[in-house]
Amino acid sequence: MSLLVVGTVAFDAIETPFGKTDKILGGAATYISLAASYFTKKMNLVSVVGEDFPQEHINMLQKHHVDTTGLQVLKDQKTFFWSGKYHNDMNSRDTITTELNVLENFNPVVPEAYQDCDFLMLGNLSPAVQKAVIKQLKKRPKLIVLDTMNFWMDIAMAELLETLKQVDVLTINDAEARQLSGEYSLVKAAQKILAMGPKYLIIKKGEHGALLFNKEQVFFAPALPLEDVFDPTGAGDSFAGGFIGYLAETEDISFENMKRAIIFGSATASFCVEKFGTENLIGLTQEQVDSRVQEFVDLVQFDIALV
Amino acid sequence: MSLLVVGTVAFDAIETPFGKTDKILGGAATYISLAASYFTKKMNLVSVVGEDFPQEHINMLQKHHVDTTGLQVLKDQKTFFWSGKYHNDMNSRDTITTELNVLENFNPVVPEAYQDCDFLMLGNLSPAVQKAVIKQLKKRPKLIVLDTMNFWMDIAMAELLETLKQVDVLTINDAEARQLSGEYSLVKAAQKILAMGPKYLIIKKGEHGALLFNKEQVFFAPALPLEDVFDPTGAGDSFAGGFIGYLAETEDISFENMKRAIIFGSATASFCVEKFGTENLIGLTQEQVDSRVQEFVDLVQFDIALV
Repeated sequence: MSLLVVGTVAFDAIETPFGKTDKILGGAATYISLAASYFTKKMNLVSVVGEDFPQEHINMLQKHHVDTTGLQVLKDQKTFFWSGKYHNDMNSRDTITTELNVLENFNPVVPEAYQDCDFLMLGNLSPAVQKAVIKQLKKRPKLIVLDTMNFWMDIAMAELLETLKQVDVLTINDAEARQLSGEYSLVKAAQKILAMGPKYLIIKKGEHGALLFNKEQVFFAPALPLEDVFDPTGAGDSFAGGFIGYLAETEDISFENMKRAIIFGSATASFCVEKFGTENLIGLTQEQVDSRVQEFVDLVQFDIALV
Repeated sequence: MSLLVVGTVAFDAIETPFGKTDKILGGAATYISLAASYFTKKMNLVSVVGEDFPQEHINMLQKHHVDTTGLQVLKDQKTFFWSGKYHNDMNSRDTITTELNVLENFNPVVPEAYQDCDFLMLGNLSPAVQKAVIKQLKKRPKLIVLDTMNFWMDIAMAELLETLKQVDVLTINDAEARQLSGEYSLVKAAQKILAMGPKYLIIKKGEHGALLFNKEQVFFAPALPLEDVFDPTGAGDSFAGGFIGYLAETEDISFENMKRAIIFGSATASFCVEKFGTENLIGLTQEQVDSRVQEFVDLVQFDIALV
């Protein structure tokens, strides 16, 4: 089934305790698409870049099964640029530069050929833009997943709450779940957030794994303990990409299948953080992905027979 | 098989965002023994209290299958007392009072009847005292588990390193693993610590679960997401008690069985934090324990068939 990915395609400059990069390829939709490409072979992209965006990046996305008809390239404008520096523990970072550029007046346009969309992944963007995408779809997708962040809770909470009513799955981190709900306990936070609209909530806890909630059930998946986390940029988006890519391919949106999708998402994210930017998400083999998933199985499986 | 528990039996006064207590029963060996009592029915205790320690607590321990022959009651002396206050996030606390009292010159004596010891759990005490216990045993136990803390790394690192050479399993938290190894990555920390002597390392991450390492394998168990964590005091000791209690009862110290023991330990710890002090560890039914373990199974089980 077809997956539509909407989000930023950008340049990032990243500094971590292990090194720093010049402007490299980044953006939520980039990470999501690359991650999803290991699970599904039909993806459509809606995003925007400037004239400075190299054709080689577009070619690379196409090689990863991404249709770029919906990628607007705006003349005489520059691509969205973010630069940041991670602290020593890699759990927090400072933003150094944010140049919105083409994103300032981004008006997403869903091409006619993309209307047959069964799975919609809305990467982090303003809630108004996310809502505008949903509105353009003549047929409601089977599943809408939305990612957002504290920034929008700070400046556009009303729009966010409005958009949340229209989505099936919300992905946010633990601090954002606490901010959105006003509850410290993630169990209580989840129930409050599920009352806002989404049927499923994924709380991303970075190196501490991820929780999937619906109103009756909860599932937890750890992050893979890694020797080195080199660059956390894009980990959440890679997670979301693996998650929705697997769901789109299997066409099964049951809680049981979402558990599997979370494991595939976690596996993809674990690749992402091992190198700078998107580097480690390009050209993975099926064997590498399968072997990583097997590490998750080995990490958490146990055998208890209760009487 | 018989389990020997060595550690503090104490009074605690605790303040959390949810309330505060007067002097209540506490101490590592208390939590360990109570937790272990849900899995094994033969436990020996070596510890020390003062004349102020109520007989009713001793009776209660005995009801939980604890032999108290090795519990020294020192005349004209007072029981070890600790008081502390948890911060709002419950992940950190300030110590308000530490009165060592009987602990100041604690000389553990293993009674002759305890010599037939197959499983030894050394709760947090000075490394020298822990080592003195091991030395008193004429036959080496099948498994020695040692818990310690940053305090001993700060003031008695040499003795701790000496004692570590003699144990099979070390349990510490993530910050302590980083301190002991000098490595931020827990994977790297684990390998360095395993080179210090222990064959197994358990890294306790509080609300983020626990990791079990040996030189070749790693296993992760989450903490149960709870509506409210009321009082974290004793959670690590309850975890250790459930862990060794299960191992002692099953007499199986394979990695596979340690995984199960970790789940039983996590389940016991999840009871502990739901009420003040030891309150919720007293008089649990088998049904309550089984049902809690089933929640862990449901929380983490997934079914992925890789080709």
